[in-house]
Amino acid sequence: MQPTPRTTPSRLAKRAQYDEETVYSILDESMFCTVSFTIDGQPFALPTAFARYEDRIYLHGSVGSHFIRELEKGIPVCISVMLTDALVVAKSAFHHSVNYRSVVVFSNAEKVEDTTLKWEALRWITEKIVPNSWEYLRPMTESEVRKTTVLSFPIVEASAKLRTGMPKDDEEDQELPIWSGLIPLRTVRETPVGDEFSKNVSLPEHLTHLPS
Amino acid sequence: MQPTPRTTPSRLAKRAQYDEETVYSILDESMFCTVSFTIDGQPFALPTAFARYEDRIYLHGSVGSHFIRELEKGIPVCISVMLTDALVVAKSAFHHSVNYRSVVVFSNAEKVEDTTLKWEALRWITEKIVPNSWEYLRPMTESEVRKTTVLSFPIVEASAKLRTGMPKDDEEDQELPIWSGLIPLRTVRETPVGDEFSKNVSLPEHLTHLPS
Repeated sequence: MQPTPRTTPSRLAKRAQYDEETVYSILDESMFCTVSFTIDGQPFALPTAFARYEDRIYLHGSVGSHFIRELEKGIPVCISVMLTDALVVAKSAFHHSVNYRSVVVFSNAEKVEDTTLKWEALRWITEKIVPNSWEYLRPMTESEVRKTTVLSFPIVEASAKLRTGMPKDDEEDQELPIWSGLIPLRTVRETPVGDEFSKNVSLPEHLTHLPS
Repeated sequence: MQPTPRTTPSRLAKRAQYDEETVYSILDESMFCTVSFTIDGQPFALPTAFARYEDRIYLHGSVGSHFIRELEKGIPVCISVMLTDALVVAKSAFHHSVNYRSVVVFSNAEKVEDTTLKWEALRWITEKIVPNSWEYLRPMTESEVRKTTVLSFPIVEASAKLRTGMPKDDEEDQELPIWSGLIPLRTVRETPVGDEFSKNVSLPEHLTHLPS
């Protein structure tokens, strides 16, 4: 993707990346995004599930949701995600940092009217959160699809920003007897806990081997 | 806090909470927030570290940062956080959900000019990420403080939104032989990894017992 004024950071521009592989992989690893939008000059933000497929981001919500109704007008939105890989602990507070991988996408919603694409998008969103679950679940009904709005956002103007590696302490601090390094962070999926209606149901294969 | 039109959800209003204890505890457990703001009608969003102290949120950044310079003008911002506690796996895709605790704060920055408060805020932000580390680190210098802008945001208009508990499947689906329940999510801090300047430095006490 081409950098634009909006996707060029004012500082630490070397941390910015624009290639689709980097942008897409960060989007695909993020379970949730934050959608920021503006109404009458006031910024709003909502966290939500999403899926990327090819060069688009798909969100869904109730047809009655105020949020969805505003977005489906096609107003400008900023969709952001951040994965935090490690706390960067330096010898001085000033050089503390975070190893992160973030993406910002500037886009406008298009309402998905095509029924086949709508079903597909709902499957992508569901399987992003719980991979390989779609065929196992009670099939979606036409009424459920009618109650749901799916929005599609072209990924045209987007950038990734990354920090990796160890702390960068001042040279004169490097020999101080103060510990510096990384504290890795990881989000784990723990053992599933069944509800009262699953007492006699064995855990399906796709839930016994969860992605980390 | 009093609900306002901006902090009243259009749907699932029963999930909203306005008491300070709930709002503050979610802010305090979140390591990072997303700051959303608007320039010339275009929404922007940036993830950043922060700390809450009493009824304010504190952010910091380089005095040269475009982001910080825009915010310090006092433009309207929306600060949001989301903690994800579990994936809610229902018997139908339609009733899948997420157990989350989110907070949205509508506010405007005030630039912290008082030097004592500025130092304090930088300590709060540092110790939020690595508790009890401030006294151990190489002391901050006046020059470092001068290079940093600290912004303070009054928490006056804010709301929390929460979902807890098991999936809510349709009654006619409850006896289906499909597993339903929760997949708990947890962010863990893993064993610290020292850099090349810490080979002969033992891990300090505050890093051997990390918060989970």
